[in-house]
Amino acid sequence: MQPTSRLLSRARRHSFTCNRYTSIFPLVIPFEILISLVPRRSISTPSLGLEMALSHPVYTVWGSNTGVGKTLVSAGLATAVLCPASRPSCPSTFLYVKPVQTGFPDDSDSRFVFRKTCEFFLHQRPKTSLFASNQAVKSSVVAAKRLPDLSIDERTGNDSGLRELCSFEERRMCGADSPTDGFELVCKTLYGWKEAVSPHLAAEKEGGVVSDEELIDSLQKCLHLHYVDGDFGSEARMWSVIETAGGVASPGPSGSLQCDIYRAFRLPAILVGDGRLGGISGTISAYESLKLRGYDIPAVILEDHGLRNEESLLSYLRNRVHVFVLPTVPKDLSDNLMIWFSESQTVFSSLKEILLDQYLKRIHRFREMQKKAGTMLWWPFTQHKLVPDENITVIDSRCGENFAVYKAAKDGKRSVISQQFDACASWWTQGPDVALQIDLAQDMGYAAARYGHVMFPENVYEPALRCTELLIEGVGKGWASRTYFSDNGSTAIEIALKMAFRKYSVDHGILSRLTNVKPHMDTIDFKVLALNGSYHGDTLGAMEAQAPSPFTGFLQQPWYTGRGLFLDPPTVFLSNMVWKLQLPSVLQSHHLSRDILSFGCRNQLFSRNRDISALSQAYSDYISGQLSLCEGSKSSYIAALIIEPVIQGAGGMHMIDPLFQRILINECHERGIPVIYDEVFTGFWRLGVESAAELLGRQPDIACYAKLMTGGVIPLAATLATEAVYNSFSGDSKLMALLHGHSYSAHALGCTAAVKAIQWFKDPHTNRNIIPQKMLLRELWDSELVYQLSAKSPVKRVIALGTLCAIELNSESNDSGYASLCSSFLIRELRRDGIYLRPLGNVIYLMCGPCTCPQVCRQVLEKVYERISGTNTF
Amino acid sequence: MQPTSRLLSRARRHSFTCNRYTSIFPLVIPFEILISLVPRRSISTPSLGLEMALSHPVYTVWGSNTGVGKTLVSAGLATAVLCPASRPSCPSTFLYVKPVQTGFPDDSDSRFVFRKTCEFFLHQRPKTSLFASNQAVKSSVVAAKRLPDLSIDERTGNDSGLRELCSFEERRMCGADSPTDGFELVCKTLYGWKEAVSPHLAAEKEGGVVSDEELIDSLQKCLHLHYVDGDFGSEARMWSVIETAGGVASPGPSGSLQCDIYRAFRLPAILVGDGRLGGISGTISAYESLKLRGYDIPAVILEDHGLRNEESLLSYLRNRVHVFVLPTVPKDLSDNLMIWFSESQTVFSSLKEILLDQYLKRIHRFREMQKKAGTMLWWPFTQHKLVPDENITVIDSRCGENFAVYKAAKDGKRSVISQQFDACASWWTQGPDVALQIDLAQDMGYAAARYGHVMFPENVYEPALRCTELLIEGVGKGWASRTYFSDNGSTAIEIALKMAFRKYSVDHGILSRLTNVKPHMDTIDFKVLALNGSYHGDTLGAMEAQAPSPFTGFLQQPWYTGRGLFLDPPTVFLSNMVWKLQLPSVLQSHHLSRDILSFGCRNQLFSRNRDISALSQAYSDYISGQLSLCEGSKSSYIAALIIEPVIQGAGGMHMIDPLFQRILINECHERGIPVIYDEVFTGFWRLGVESAAELLGRQPDIACYAKLMTGGVIPLAATLATEAVYNSFSGDSKLMALLHGHSYSAHALGCTAAVKAIQWFKDPHTNRNIIPQKMLLRELWDSELVYQLSAKSPVKRVIALGTLCAIELNSESNDSGYASLCSSFLIRELRRDGIYLRPLGNVIYLMCGPCTCPQVCRQVLEKVYERISGTNTF
Repeated sequence: MQPTSRLLSRARRHSFTCNRYTSIFPLVIPFEILISLVPRRSISTPSLGLEMALSHPVYTVWGSNTGVGKTLVSAGLATAVLCPASRPSCPSTFLYVKPVQTGFPDDSDSRFVFRKTCEFFLHQRPKTSLFASNQAVKSSVVAAKRLPDLSIDERTGNDSGLRELCSFEERRMCGADSPTDGFELVCKTLYGWKEAVSPHLAAEKEGGVVSDEELIDSLQKCLHLHYVDGDFGSEARMWSVIETAGGVASPGPSGSLQCDIYRAFRLPAILVGDGRLGGISGTISAYESLKLRGYDIPAVILEDHGLRNEESLLSYLRNRVHVFVLPTVPKDLSDNLMIWFSESQTVFSSLKEILLDQYLKRIHRFREMQKKAGTMLWWPFTQHKLVPDENITVIDSRCGENFAVYKAAKDGKRSVISQQFDACASWWTQGPDVALQIDLAQDMGYAAARYGHVMFPENVYEPALRCTELLIEGVGKGWASRTYFSDNGSTAIEIALKMAFRKYSVDHGILSRLTNVKPHMDTIDFKVLALNGSYHGDTLGAMEAQAPSPFTGFLQQPWYTGRGLFLDPPTVFLSNMVWKLQLPSVLQSHHLSRDILSFGCRNQLFSRNRDISALSQAYSDYISGQLSLCEGSKSSYIAALIIEPVIQGAGGMHMIDPLFQRILINECHERGIPVIYDEVFTGFWRLGVESAAELLGRQPDIACYAKLMTGGVIPLAATLATEAVYNSFSGDSKLMALLHGHSYSAHALGCTAAVKAIQWFKDPHTNRNIIPQKMLLRELWDSELVYQLSAKSPVKRVIALGTLCAIELNSESNDSGYASLCSSFLIRELRRDGIYLRPLGNVIYLMCGPCTCPQVCRQVLEKVYERISGTNTF
Repeated sequence: MQPTSRLLSRARRHSFTCNRYTSIFPLVIPFEILISLVPRRSISTPSLGLEMALSHPVYTVWGSNTGVGKTLVSAGLATAVLCPASRPSCPSTFLYVKPVQTGFPDDSDSRFVFRKTCEFFLHQRPKTSLFASNQAVKSSVVAAKRLPDLSIDERTGNDSGLRELCSFEERRMCGADSPTDGFELVCKTLYGWKEAVSPHLAAEKEGGVVSDEELIDSLQKCLHLHYVDGDFGSEARMWSVIETAGGVASPGPSGSLQCDIYRAFRLPAILVGDGRLGGISGTISAYESLKLRGYDIPAVILEDHGLRNEESLLSYLRNRVHVFVLPTVPKDLSDNLMIWFSESQTVFSSLKEILLDQYLKRIHRFREMQKKAGTMLWWPFTQHKLVPDENITVIDSRCGENFAVYKAAKDGKRSVISQQFDACASWWTQGPDVALQIDLAQDMGYAAARYGHVMFPENVYEPALRCTELLIEGVGKGWASRTYFSDNGSTAIEIALKMAFRKYSVDHGILSRLTNVKPHMDTIDFKVLALNGSYHGDTLGAMEAQAPSPFTGFLQQPWYTGRGLFLDPPTVFLSNMVWKLQLPSVLQSHHLSRDILSFGCRNQLFSRNRDISALSQAYSDYISGQLSLCEGSKSSYIAALIIEPVIQGAGGMHMIDPLFQRILINECHERGIPVIYDEVFTGFWRLGVESAAELLGRQPDIACYAKLMTGGVIPLAATLATEAVYNSFSGDSKLMALLHGHSYSAHALGCTAAVKAIQWFKDPHTNRNIIPQKMLLRELWDSELVYQLSAKSPVKRVIALGTLCAIELNSESNDSGYASLCSSFLIRELRRDGIYLRPLGNVIYLMCGPCTCPQVCRQVLEKVYERISGTNTF
C-alpha cells in the first residue's frame, strides 16, 4: 500500500489544499487519473509446492466485524477439545495460529487463548494433563522493543523491518494421567505490529510489509510443523484453528483482503456473527463475501445480545449452515470469564461435534468420489476401461492457474490437498489469474441476480450489446460488423458454414436459381476447402468440414461423409534448435531450394517478404491446381474455405506455414469463396495476439470464437461476420433469415464473463504480459529453454507461441497419433511434480493463460525439461 | 416472522428448559426439525403493474451498517440540490422517502432531513425560495399513540395493526424568488413502529406486519405521486431518494431482507460505508451483497474516522465506483451540524454531480441500445428486415418470472422501467421464481470462485458428480446409469444418436463386421425413426433426424438430406371444450369407431386402458407396416427411434397421442432399436412431471436434457444412457470410446446450477406447486378458463399441460405455419398489458416456471382471454 498512499497523499497535497474533507474525486482529480494511482489488487497464483494436510480438522475463524468475539470462539473451541467433560478415547493436540496481530504485544490473541484455556483447565480440573505453550514468531521492530530484551533474536537483520522473536511461554498441568500422554495446546502468533489499526496501516507505518506469498508460506510451514500422525475414529487427535484479523474483507499486511489472501487454502470457515443491532446484515454480508470466494462455512456462531438475530440468520441460511448462540459476555473487564466459559461449554462442544462431523463427511466424500466417478460418469474422449479408479483426479477447487487436488494417504504419506498447475488449461479454455477469477465470480453472481437469462431475439440487454461491441472492436476489427452467438465452438462452426454457403449461393447466382425453380437439392453439392489434420468440433456439420480421422470414422459417426476438398499443408516447427519447414509430399517434387526449409528465428516465418518467392508460387500453383480439379463438375462447388489460422490444435498442435495459409486465402478471395477462420482455439491471445488473423495479415469473411472468450469460466461462442455475409440473409420472408439458434443464445452470464475477460486480457493494467505499444503478449516460455528442449533426443519437435508450448515426443511408429499412449509415463511423473498435463497422443503441451506470470511458466517448463532430460524413452 | 418465532419459542420452551444460552441445534433439536420451523424466505414476483419512472434521478441510500450516517447523506444530498451555491437554471423538487422507520415517532429520519434542510437553507440564505413538508403515513398503534391526537386518522380500522396518520408539518421560506416558482422538499415516512429495533421485531411485537408486496406498492405509489414533468438538460428538476433501514441485509417488516424486498425496482444505490475500524470489511461485504442481487452502485460515501479506509476501498473498487469522504461528524449532540453541512457541501455537490451524470448516462444508453442492436446484433431465427428499431425490447433486468423492460417516453407518457411477464419463459428455459434466482446468483458466484471451470475427462469434482447423482436418481430413475454432458439440446441429441448407432451396431453384429473387414461405409445406411413435426436442434446431426421443414431446406443447410423414416403422428387437443384426437390421413381409412376421437378429460388420454383397443391395434399395424417397408433393403437399417415425448415443441406445440408413442416404443423395443427421448423441452416439470417418460409409462435407452435443467440460468445439457448403451463403447482401444466432447463439458457453474434447480423444483418446501404424495405439479392454468378459451371463435385448439398453455389461432390458410404473422397484433396488445409473448407462427403460448404461483398464471391467462374475446380476427 505504501506507493499508493504516497501517491494519494501527493495528489492530495497538490489538489486538496489544506482540507482533505472533500471527495477524493472526481471534481478534484479526474477518475481516470485517480484509478491509475490505486494499484491493482495483485494476488499471486499459489505456488506448486503448496499443500494442506487433511489428516485432521483445520478451520479458519472469520469475523463478520471486529470485536465480535473471534478469539473467544477460538478459546472456547480449545477448551471443548482440551478440557472435555467426559474422558475421550485418546488425547488431542490443539494448534491455534494467529497469523497477523496488531496492537502487539499489548494485545495478543494467542496469549489470550493460551491463558484462558489454561485457566479453564485448572477451573474444570479434568483428569487429563495439559501441556500448553504460546509463541510469537516475528514482529515489527517497534513492537519487538516492547518485549523483554531476551525475546528479540538479535541475529536477524531487519531489512524487512521485521524481527524474529524468542517470545515463548509454556505451562504444564497434570491431572491424574501421566504427563507424557497428555493433551497439548500450541498457540502461535506469526506476525505482530504495535499499532492497533488495520495490518496494512501498521505494516506501512512500522515497516515490515509481509507479502501475501510470505504470509501463506509461513502459515503453511507452521501448520506442517505441528501435527499428530495416525488415523482416528470419532475423535480427532489434532485440531488446527487459524484466526484472521478484523472482518472477512479486512486488509492483511500487504493491503490485499484477507479473504483473498487465504483463498488458496480454501479452509472451511467458522464465521463469528454479530448479535448486535445491525448484526444480521453484517453477518449475512460477511457470509456472502466468503461464499463469493469459494469458501465453505459449516457454522455461524454469535453472541446473544437479546435481539434474536439468530432467527433471521437461520431463516436466511436454512438448510445450509448451523447457527450457534453464545451467552452474553460479561461487560465487567475484571471478570475472568470462567463462568462464561462454563456456561458456553455445551455450545462449544456442539460446535466441535459439528465441525468434526463436517470434516469427516468431507474426507468420506473425497474417498468415495473416485469410486463413484468410475461408476456414474461418462467422460468425453475417454476409454473408461483404460482409467482405473486410482488414476482419477479428484479436484477440490481451482485458484488462478492451479487445480487444488485431493491426494489420498499413500505410502505413509498423509492425505493432502495439493496445488497442480493446470497445464492443459482445462481443454484450452482457461485464462484467468487469481485476481480475474475473483472478479469473474463477482460478475457471475451479479449477472445471475440481475438477468438470470433473458431471451435474445428481437431484444437487447447490456451484456449482449457490450460483448458485441467489444468483439467487433476487438477480434473483428476492420472487417466484422455482426455477431451471432451460440454455445460452443462446434455450433459456432455450423453457423459459420451456413453463413458461408448462403453467401456463396447469393454471390454465385445459386440462390436465384433456387427461388425460381424448385431445385433438386441432390444436384447441388457444396463442399468446403480445408486442410488435412484440421479439427472443427464434434457435431456432424462441423465434422463434415474436416478430413477423415479417428474422430470421424463409421465407428464414431456413421453419417459422416467428409464434404470437403482436403489439402495437405506444409508445417513448421522447432527441431534441434532450428525452425524447419516440412513440405507435403506433393510439394516436395517441386524443385525448391533447400534453404527455404529452415529459418533463423520464428519471426521469419511470419515475414511478408516471403510472399514473393518461389515457394509462394509453388503454393499458389498447388492450390489453384486442386481447385480447378473440383471446378470441373457443374453441380459441385467449393463454397467455403475453413482453416484454423496458424496452429491446428486438436489435430496435434501443428503449426501450418503462415505463407501457405495466406496464399490459400488469396486464392479463395479471387474465386469468391467465403473464408472462415476457426479461432475457437487460437482466439483471444492464445497465440500471443488477440486474433491469429493478425499473424496471417489476412482478414476472413467469417470467424468463430469460444473457449477463452469468457476467460474460461462458462460456455459461450460467437460467429462474427461481415456486413456482406449478413446481408445475404436479408429478405422479405422470415424463411430467408438464418434459422439457427440455441436456447441460451447470448446468455447474460456468458456475455458478462466475455465482457470482463476481453477487457482484462488486453488492458496492460490488468494483464502485465501485454506489451502496450505492440498489443502483443511478451514471450512467456523462456526461449533459451525451448531451444534446448528441441535438441533433446526424446523430442521430435517443439512449438512455442503465445501461451502454448507443445512438444512432440519421438515414438515407435505403431504408437503415434491420437491413440498413442507413449507419453503416459512422463505425464504421471509430471503430475507428481505438480503439473497437470493431458497429452494429445504423443504430443504433450503446456498452456498458460494470457496473464500468467512468466516466472510460473519458467518454473513449469524447467520441470518438464528436467523430466525429459532424465529420460531416453518412454 | 410471527409464526416462526412462535414455533421457535415453543421449541425452546420444550427443549431448552430455562436456558437459551445453548446452540439452537443440533444436539438439542435435530437440524431437520429446526429448518422446518424456519420459513422459507418467500419473495413474490413483482406484480405486472409495477413501473418505475425514469424521468429523473431516483436513488436508494443503503448503509453498510447501522449508524454509519445514511440520513446525514440523504440530508446532505437534499441540501446540495435545494440550497445550491450558484443559481441553477431551474428549481428542483427533492423527494425523500423513508419507507420503514423504527423508534418512531421519537426517531424520524424524514423529520431530520426536513428540519436540517430547512435549517441549512436559512443558514445559507440562498436567493431561492423553499417549500418543505414532512409527513408520516402509517404507524403501529403504540407508535401512533405517542403522536398528538389529531395525527391519528380514527376512521381507519386497525385490523392490520396499523393506523393511518395525519402527521404533517410544513415550512415556506422565501428568498428573492417568488414563492410560487421555488424549490420544494417533500419528506415522507411510510411506516413507523415505536420500538427502536429491527423492523421485523418491532412489527411482530406491536402488530402491523407489512407484507413485501404492500411495502413495494406503497413505495411505488408514493414515488408516482410526486414528480415533476418535463425534460431537462444538465440540471435535474426532480430528485427522489429512498433511505433503507439498518444495513443492506437487515430484515424489513416481513422478515425478508431489505436488499431482496427492493430488488424489483433495482434502483441504483448510494452505499454509505463505514469509516471506523473494521469498516473496510463491512463496506466491501455490503457492496458485494448488493452486487449479488443485481444492484448497480455508482457511489460509496463514508465518514472520515482518520483510518484512511477510503484508500483500501478505492483499491478494491477501482474502475467501478466513486468513493467520497465526509468530514468527521461532531460528537457533541448539541451541535446543530450547520458547520458540518457547510464543510461537506463540496462533497455533496460532487456526489450530486456524479449521480446526475450516472443517471444521464443510463438514460442515454437506454436510448441508444435499440439503435445499436439494430446495427450490430444478429438474432437467431429472426428476419431483421421485419424488426424496426422501435419494436426491439430493451431489457434492463429480470426478477423471477418477469422482465424489467425499458419503455421510452411516448405520447406524453414518461419513460419507465416496466414489469413484463416472460410468457415465453425465454425460449422455454426459465424456471426460477425470485427466491431461486437469488439463490442461484449466490451459487454462481460461489462456483466461479471455487472452480471457475475445471477439466472433466478422467477427473471428478463435486458439482459434476452431484449433478450426475441427481440426474440418475431423478429423470433417469429406474433405467439410466450414466450421464454424458454437453452444452445444449442440439449437442445432446448428436451424442444420443452416436450412442444409439453404436448400440445398434453392437447388438446387430454390424460392429463385428466392421472390425473384420474394412467396410465400405457407403454400403451401410443408418436411419432414424422419427415423427413428422418433430424438432431436435439446429446442428446438422440433429437436423438429419428430423423431417424436412423450413428449418432444414437447402436455403438453410445445403447439407441436409433427412436420414429418417418419418411417420405422421395422431395429435390430441382441446377444441370447443372437448379433448379431441386427430388421426393422420393414413389412419383415417381404418374403420375406427368415431367415439375414440373424443375424450371426457385430459387424463383419459394417458389412461393405460387404451393399450388394448382397436386404435392401439391400428397404430401397431401402421408402425410395423412402415418399419417392414424399410427392412427390405439389406444395407439400410432403422438404428434409432427419436421422439419428443407427449409434446412436440418447436414444431408448433402439438400434443401427440400418448398411446401412439407407447406403441411406437414397444415396436422398437421388439426390434432392438434403441429409443431416444428428446426431453430438452419436456424435461424437468415442463409438462407437470419431472420427466415426460412418466406420462408415457415407458422408459427410453437414452434421453436428452437441457433448458430447464439449470433452472434457466446457464447452458448445460446431459445425455443419459443405460449401462448397456455405455458398455457398447467399452473396449481396449481409445478409438472405441465415444470421441465427442466440448471444452466446457460438465462445467462447474452449469452443474452447480443444475444441482440447485433440480432439488429446488422437486422439494415441496421450496416449490409449493408440488403435490408431495404424487410428485406432480398442481394444475397451474385455471381449467375452467382453458376450456372457455377453447370455445372462442379465433381459437383453433388449446393445449394446457404442466407449465404450458398453447393456443393455436385460426388463420387464413396462406398464413399458417412457422412464417405466419397472424398473431402479431395480439402479441403487441398483450405486451402492452405486461405480458411478453413470442409466437410460433399462428400458435401463441404461455409458459411459466415450475414454481410460479397459480394466481400469477391466472392473472396472465385472464388477460389473454380478454384480448382474444375482444377480437374476432387478427
